[in-house]
Amino acid sequence: MPTASDAGAPLSTLARTEAQTLPIYQRVAADLERAIATGSVRAGDRLPSVRQVCAQHGVSASTATLAYRWLENRALVEARPKSGYFVAPTRAPLPEPRIDTRMGSAGFVSGDESTRIFLLQLDDPLAAPSFSTMPGGALLPQARLRQLTASVNRLHPEYASAYHTPGSAALRQEIARRSLAAGVRLRPEEIIVTHGCTEALHLALRSVAQAGDTVALESPTYFMLLELVKSLGMRSLEIPTHPRDGISLEALDFATREANPSGRISACIVVPNFQNPLGSLMPDANKRALVALAAQRGFTLIESDVYGDTYFGDERPPVLQSFDTRGDVILCSSFSKTVAPGYRIGWVAPGRHFNAVQSLKFATSMATPRLPQEVLAQFLANGGYDHHMRKLRAALKQQSRQMIDAVTRWFPTGCRLSRPQGGLILWVELPAGVDSRRVFEQARREHIGLAPGATFSCSRRFDHFIRLHYGQPGSARLDAHIRRLGEIVAGQAG
Amino acid sequence: MPTASDAGAPLSTLARTEAQTLPIYQRVAADLERAIATGSVRAGDRLPSVRQVCAQHGVSASTATLAYRWLENRALVEARPKSGYFVAPTRAPLPEPRIDTRMGSAGFVSGDESTRIFLLQLDDPLAAPSFSTMPGGALLPQARLRQLTASVNRLHPEYASAYHTPGSAALRQEIARRSLAAGVRLRPEEIIVTHGCTEALHLALRSVAQAGDTVALESPTYFMLLELVKSLGMRSLEIPTHPRDGISLEALDFATREANPSGRISACIVVPNFQNPLGSLMPDANKRALVALAAQRGFTLIESDVYGDTYFGDERPPVLQSFDTRGDVILCSSFSKTVAPGYRIGWVAPGRHFNAVQSLKFATSMATPRLPQEVLAQFLANGGYDHHMRKLRAALKQQSRQMIDAVTRWFPTGCRLSRPQGGLILWVELPAGVDSRRVFEQARREHIGLAPGATFSCSRRFDHFIRLHYGQPGSARLDAHIRRLGEIVAGQAG
Repeated sequence: MPTASDAGAPLSTLARTEAQTLPIYQRVAADLERAIATGSVRAGDRLPSVRQVCAQHGVSASTATLAYRWLENRALVEARPKSGYFVAPTRAPLPEPRIDTRMGSAGFVSGDESTRIFLLQLDDPLAAPSFSTMPGGALLPQARLRQLTASVNRLHPEYASAYHTPGSAALRQEIARRSLAAGVRLRPEEIIVTHGCTEALHLALRSVAQAGDTVALESPTYFMLLELVKSLGMRSLEIPTHPRDGISLEALDFATREANPSGRISACIVVPNFQNPLGSLMPDANKRALVALAAQRGFTLIESDVYGDTYFGDERPPVLQSFDTRGDVILCSSFSKTVAPGYRIGWVAPGRHFNAVQSLKFATSMATPRLPQEVLAQFLANGGYDHHMRKLRAALKQQSRQMIDAVTRWFPTGCRLSRPQGGLILWVELPAGVDSRRVFEQARREHIGLAPGATFSCSRRFDHFIRLHYGQPGSARLDAHIRRLGEIVAGQAG
Repeated sequence: MPTASDAGAPLSTLARTEAQTLPIYQRVAADLERAIATGSVRAGDRLPSVRQVCAQHGVSASTATLAYRWLENRALVEARPKSGYFVAPTRAPLPEPRIDTRMGSAGFVSGDESTRIFLLQLDDPLAAPSFSTMPGGALLPQARLRQLTASVNRLHPEYASAYHTPGSAALRQEIARRSLAAGVRLRPEEIIVTHGCTEALHLALRSVAQAGDTVALESPTYFMLLELVKSLGMRSLEIPTHPRDGISLEALDFATREANPSGRISACIVVPNFQNPLGSLMPDANKRALVALAAQRGFTLIESDVYGDTYFGDERPPVLQSFDTRGDVILCSSFSKTVAPGYRIGWVAPGRHFNAVQSLKFATSMATPRLPQEVLAQFLANGGYDHHMRKLRAALKQQSRQMIDAVTRWFPTGCRLSRPQGGLILWVELPAGVDSRRVFEQARREHIGLAPGATFSCSRRFDHFIRLHYGQPGSARLDAHIRRLGEIVAGQAG
């Protein structure tokens, strides 16, 4: 039998970075886990004894035991009394959710508004997963931002005393510089800094659509987009969206034909990269085709790219705007999912709608505060951002795997599960007939954070789905909560 | 002849505070000025020689000469060759502007949009007055805010990493505590923190009115309110407003009668305390009557109180909401005109429209960043705010007098001038026929900041008005600019 230590490939830079920040017992566990993941040891195999682990890793018996407990909690190993530790039997991966191709009819937004508002107000510090979909504080560059804030504050107290439109020149410069990686070539003066991506989307939509207009949305979609459309007195048309490839071009083609009964569609809001809640990633060909369709049918595309930098693969996926030649794709993003959720700093590159968006920005909130903008600009400029994002991507990728493992193991038969290639969200289809709102209510009482599927649509078709997120680092508590969530779901299913 | 030094009353606390921050020559000048203002010396009287001033104040000859130059620049004294300094002849005060009682008909906002947007983007650091209507940096508590920011940042780096709705509990507590001075008894949970008063007004208006509705506005009104109404596809109805007493209740009564041709009015936005651009202050009786009228006719009052704390008198004027018993007055304010324009922190107390405003806040910008909120909370809690506001009010009062003096002296016959009792804005009526946009264009080239009257209305009736502000401390340069502005106006009038 191979020992755990000879199963691992040489530690990559990323793994090394990870290893440095993990407790010792988790490093030991990671080595054992790698042996299981690579197939060096298989289901049912006996694992090294605690004494062997101590010798191989130069750790104490209590550390070795902690490592096994950690793996046991995560259902990767089994302890057999008086026999030692064995590789646990693996479960087949859960299938992916299927696309629901029914077209939503255009209508004023209804559905689960009260739950949406409730979700935004939920502030349960004990929750695991948390109710807020964002990386856990330990994964964010708080210490570096604190340093930079101290420095900018010391040097520029005058930032407190003046408005600053349309945003920090330094930050817009950095955003422009980085836009190349997403396939666009923005100039700083084409960018307006906003209060988070929420304001960017709000301004973008108002710049191209009016009360009474119809707006095409992915289905399911981020629930705040439903609230946005509703708040502006617009109608929403939900377009079927595939859990892997994103919005259905066929359905959108059908919906935007002249003769369709929904009337003219002014805009379509999409999250092409790691959509919320599906985690879907549009293939480049689909992005190109979507931009062509929008040009042909004369509606404006508004894209949110807040998850674009959290890809797990080798390359950052391009934005829709990179396929646009008419200046009619409005690109919105923010630093809320990657650097500083609390800063509320986002931005919009409105293309040919620049003047309209800028006027609306003045009438909506005038300006965006300067200090956090300059802090972000320095964080982006001096290389801190790239290093941070490499670490964050590696962590999210690992955490996604851990949560997928846990859901696979603990959720009942009949569940389906998304396979995100980036972002921090899992979309889980529960057995038909399970009411995810009841699951939500029970889970909430037990400090388990999730969002019920009904919040992501005006239809009832996602009532047996839930959204989870893996933004928080793995922990025994998180594992226990996912296990318990599986029991709650099974209880509702039974 | 009395000497300058025996004319002054004992220095009050405020004057002492002022005196400590002024250069020596200005302190000497202030003593001489007080002698003139109190009538101890009169127009044409000879003033103490430079040598006498040196002896009385224990200053050098160059300081005494500087003091006289300062007074000369401000046209308070005249130098006569070989004779010394004399009190300059006084000019009669300019009359106040009159109310224009013509009612505007309800219509979609037009008027001078390009100038409004242009004004917001103007960033001329050489301008005196500045184009931004706010207290000069030297009058704002930058140093204290820097300290507090350093401290909060050091203790709470985690504020960067989380959303925070609906705002800092500590800040809302402080706002609630201070609301008593404005005549209301807010509870912290009735307050939502916003991105400046601009967002507060935006959310308030959307919570009670929809596209196509008519909104009553003061005329003239802050130009951003015209843009706000326009951006939401609403119609505006301009209600004649008196430069001293505020909105005409008779006109509003007429406009909101059932049979009036403008249709139903959903909301009325007013700035009851030190309105922009008029500087008007509604008497309490008018406030009470306005709230009663709104209740009777069923429209919601939305008030901005951003200037309420900048009263020159002994007592803070009450807000409209203090006369409200139905929860139908929405109170909006911010710290942008008093503490930190760059923070973009405002708030709204929406009364019975709380849930609607909160939902809109989520859909518009989700949350407001926490760090500046906690800084403001500490500044308000520990007494720094009260001390700062005493100083700021004294400075603004003095600066208003100086600018009124300068305009009175240098502007041509036929001008009229507001008499603000707070705030930081002067409303100047130029001789009929002067096109204030041409004045604006010329002044702008010479770094003299003002706003042309046309931006404050959709009508042409304020085309011969300009708005000045006295937020910046007096200086020889500012005096020279007002003198030059008088020449420009005279040139256009001639």
